[in-house]
Amino acid sequence: MNTQPLDDAGGPTAGELGEHAVIEAIVAAAPSSSNGDDAAVLTHAAPNSQVVATTDMLVEGRHFRRDWSTPEEVGKKAIVQNFADIEAMGARAVAALLAVSVPAETPVSFFERLAAGIESRVAEYSAELVGGDVVSGDQLVISVTAIGSLGGNLPSLRLDRARVGQRVVAHGKIGWSAAGMALLERFGRENVPEDLTEVVAAHCAPYLTPGRGVVARATGATSMTDSSDGLVVDLTTIAARSGVSVDLFAEAIAPGPELVRAGEVLGVDPWQWVLTGGEDHTLVATTANDVPSGFREIGRVGKQSGDPAVTVDGAAPHYHGGWVSF
Amino acid sequence: MNTQPLDDAGGPTAGELGEHAVIEAIVAAAPSSSNGDDAAVLTHAAPNSQVVATTDMLVEGRHFRRDWSTPEEVGKKAIVQNFADIEAMGARAVAALLAVSVPAETPVSFFERLAAGIESRVAEYSAELVGGDVVSGDQLVISVTAIGSLGGNLPSLRLDRARVGQRVVAHGKIGWSAAGMALLERFGRENVPEDLTEVVAAHCAPYLTPGRGVVARATGATSMTDSSDGLVVDLTTIAARSGVSVDLFAEAIAPGPELVRAGEVLGVDPWQWVLTGGEDHTLVATTANDVPSGFREIGRVGKQSGDPAVTVDGAAPHYHGGWVSF
Repeated sequence: MNTQPLDDAGGPTAGELGEHAVIEAIVAAAPSSSNGDDAAVLTHAAPNSQVVATTDMLVEGRHFRRDWSTPEEVGKKAIVQNFADIEAMGARAVAALLAVSVPAETPVSFFERLAAGIESRVAEYSAELVGGDVVSGDQLVISVTAIGSLGGNLPSLRLDRARVGQRVVAHGKIGWSAAGMALLERFGRENVPEDLTEVVAAHCAPYLTPGRGVVARATGATSMTDSSDGLVVDLTTIAARSGVSVDLFAEAIAPGPELVRAGEVLGVDPWQWVLTGGEDHTLVATTANDVPSGFREIGRVGKQSGDPAVTVDGAAPHYHGGWVSF
Repeated sequence: MNTQPLDDAGGPTAGELGEHAVIEAIVAAAPSSSNGDDAAVLTHAAPNSQVVATTDMLVEGRHFRRDWSTPEEVGKKAIVQNFADIEAMGARAVAALLAVSVPAETPVSFFERLAAGIESRVAEYSAELVGGDVVSGDQLVISVTAIGSLGGNLPSLRLDRARVGQRVVAHGKIGWSAAGMALLERFGRENVPEDLTEVVAAHCAPYLTPGRGVVARATGATSMTDSSDGLVVDLTTIAARSGVSVDLFAEAIAPGPELVRAGEVLGVDPWQWVLTGGEDHTLVATTANDVPSGFREIGRVGKQSGDPAVTVDGAAPHYHGGWVSF
């Protein structure tokens, strides 16, 4: 299998051109008037608003592979996984910061393309890459911090406010990222069956429609998270924090034709990806009201029930577990 | 020379106990009510305030060595270098986020002590460690993001507002961090001459009195930075951005008895540390008004003069250059 980086077009390296060339490449591809001083100064905070902040780190070989993902996709993924955490509080993403540890042999063009991917995603949110740091390191490590704004008097959407009888609703794909990774493990990027490239793309650069978290909060959702560790794991966290149980509707989360096909190709039950696959960053919320626009109903909150706290059509899920760091 | 980590007391490792144990150790040592959800929600922004943000990454072996610094010192350094960037805009630090890439063999106790160091510094600023991320990686990488608040209508203190005739003022030590590193390179931590331990401590855990940046802004400073790359380099940046020159007063920045002694011990001219040493995070500002409290006058802003833009008593500095990443 070809394990060459997809970005390996040669060109001068970070070690050859130095830190400032890397910074210049990033700033040129993702410019901001707030950037370039000791710290970024953002626009005035909306009256009565709160700052929301989160950080996520991506390590090469662990969270992305350069023979699987283009630099643009890595940048998009880094933004979406951070902005999903902002959205999951019901807040609006307004800015990102980027710190990178850079092996000397990395081409400067990698960072140009990484920043282009970041810029394309932050622009969709009307946000900007406002600052960062570039240091020399043995391993390519990308740390993104997202800053958001939570306006008005409604509470933020925490993990501990699911209540019995509420709908469980979701916005975004479920299981696609895990299926995409399984396809990459089997085929590498270049040999993925053509009808499954979209599944692989969902792994390399997950996508969420900007603003769905704000809509959920505005329409009375009470709790929300983004599914980063796996649907059952993340809902188990909400159930535990809220003192409730969750029953998922099998029909609502059943693998669609793409995942069924991927399962056939790989000889894997696609339900495994749906129930345990992480990194989709799908927004999962609970609400006593109508389903917020862009969301779909996938289950119902019930009374605390002991183990398992999350069921599918009333039965223990066939697969559980999720993303583990070590 | 002994190159054992100073924290090597054994105990279970991150690989043995897992990501959650690392997170628990950090949160126990640096607790915050804002932590523990998808993202941290900070207190309501002050009316008419702006959010200020910056990020800095520390790589083991490059920015710190565990045989030179205790985990507490690494945590303190990570906070001070980030909060100094917030202060350098004239803002008040309010929160920090921490992302770490963790080799499996790192003792969990390292992170407990790192977080204790972070907590001790953020508490001095009435700030909190509000969130973070822990991932598995080959190299220990610590990424801190600082969030600050800039209140009122005065402009932030940028690099491009030094004006001819203004005083150049400084708060903090100059050259101590570089001298401390030179001592560590020669002696290691344990064998540093007793009368120079304070110089080494200034390298391992630099300290700034919280709030001096806010005072500088309140008393009419026009530009400010923190000296992270070296005094001449950082003032050259201000001079270039502002279209001015800077003349430093030799008497005001002359090495004190500690640096003179370190220079004797190592056979090095201590002026080298004063002029080119980075990582002191000393606040350097320009003002047309009186010297802000806690600052001292170290020079004067002059007309743009070509090369060199920064002089000492009117002459080219004997040493220039500074920190280089690659």
